[in-house]
Amino acid sequence: MTESAPLQGVSLIENGWFIEKNAQWPGQANALEVKEVLLHKKTKFQDLLVFASAKHGNVIVLDGVIQITERDEMSYQEMLAHLPMFSAEKPTHVLIIGGGDGGVLREVVKHDTVEKVTWCEIDGDVVEAAKKYMPNVAIAVSNPKTELLVGDGVAFAESSKENSFDVIIVDSSDPVGPAEKLFSKEFYVNVHRILKPGGVVCSQGECLWLNEDLIDAMVTDYGACFASAEYASIQVPTYPSGQIGAFIARKAGTAGPASCRSPRREP
Amino acid sequence: MTESAPLQGVSLIENGWFIEKNAQWPGQANALEVKEVLLHKKTKFQDLLVFASAKHGNVIVLDGVIQITERDEMSYQEMLAHLPMFSAEKPTHVLIIGGGDGGVLREVVKHDTVEKVTWCEIDGDVVEAAKKYMPNVAIAVSNPKTELLVGDGVAFAESSKENSFDVIIVDSSDPVGPAEKLFSKEFYVNVHRILKPGGVVCSQGECLWLNEDLIDAMVTDYGACFASAEYASIQVPTYPSGQIGAFIARKAGTAGPASCRSPRREP
Repeated sequence: MTESAPLQGVSLIENGWFIEKNAQWPGQANALEVKEVLLHKKTKFQDLLVFASAKHGNVIVLDGVIQITERDEMSYQEMLAHLPMFSAEKPTHVLIIGGGDGGVLREVVKHDTVEKVTWCEIDGDVVEAAKKYMPNVAIAVSNPKTELLVGDGVAFAESSKENSFDVIIVDSSDPVGPAEKLFSKEFYVNVHRILKPGGVVCSQGECLWLNEDLIDAMVTDYGACFASAEYASIQVPTYPSGQIGAFIARKAGTAGPASCRSPRREP
Repeated sequence: MTESAPLQGVSLIENGWFIEKNAQWPGQANALEVKEVLLHKKTKFQDLLVFASAKHGNVIVLDGVIQITERDEMSYQEMLAHLPMFSAEKPTHVLIIGGGDGGVLREVVKHDTVEKVTWCEIDGDVVEAAKKYMPNVAIAVSNPKTELLVGDGVAFAESSKENSFDVIIVDSSDPVGPAEKLFSKEFYVNVHRILKPGGVVCSQGECLWLNEDLIDAMVTDYGACFASAEYASIQVPTYPSGQIGAFIARKAGTAGPASCRSPRREP
């Protein structure tokens, strides 16, 4: 292990509580009471911890950062999936990058317009952990419309053909670790290229209280090639500061407003 | 001390972090890194702790519950004050109940229409602590329009004349401890009585994730005698789940919509 090795999840458990101390949000931490550690392993990419909490159901932690709890997962999954899905004219082919727990996939396949979901998650161990410890989140993993590719989303976007997807959803962890390259201008140039005209991308867009500079870069710089680039706020009680955002952008090419502030379809 | 005695603030400091464990939100806790304890005393009403945090400035804690940090205080003060102030036609006489740190007062006196603010805070020690350790929050305590009455807000509302106030703001702690009686139907019957026609009350309205039943009681039961009774959501990173609400209600008696969803005045 080097000095920059990611935190070990279990080392953040003190007196029976998981305390999410992290250099990304110095001086503040969420804490959840731990009932039982269910899994702790080094995967090929990151430190994976799953624990049963006292009041929030099972919890998945990557590199010491809470990714999802069974209690409040819907607040994130629904917004990250339905914001772009209802912003697209008729989403038939959807690409999900990340989202290893399967929660965004679960929401995407609720849309009858969908014919195929290409799902590119770098860490197959996260998918397996979700299937075992969070079955109601990973419930759509075997949906016949789904093609799961375990691999690098950045490389997948580079190699995909232009005008391939109606909606792309980037459900990533924070930009420290395996998700780092998903927060770059180069990646979004490829996302733009492989979206169909009028297509929409929606990405985990970080926290207003902690990542102002990154949010600014996403909306102004990463979003520069899009017809619109916006930030939506989502409340997630178990994320740092209780808030996270969605970066949402539309490729030019269809009639109607470029903004994603109003839905283009009825549920 | 009896078994039901409130938590001692300093007992929640573990390994240099204040961890807000509390029976009101079991299994979850915010944690802030502590630089130095500045004050800890039992006042006549509650356990008062002030500490300097590593990243959030000074913090005031009552009965073990974080009330305010210098870093994010504006997110709460501005919403709790300006929602009712901009909902009123021409607020000249304002009553603040609670709000011992002076933050709501600071926002209220920014409105040029205001001629007098009656401020009823039960615990004078909190006002003194804010003046000393949070001077930028307590900055308007000596404002000449302000009359500070150190006393019980429930009794004050009972004894006040009808049609006295354009706006009433109830900036209370949680309904465990000195603020308990502020969460009752009887109190809001008096608030309604002492508001002028068309007047607006806005109260700390608790958290969507933790207090669904109480919010329902406020909006449907406490709000029954008002022309409108609504809930507004506020993001406060250092409150449990990162969210708190405002209960806002208007007394009948003026033209225009009863709802407070749109401002009645320009800034």
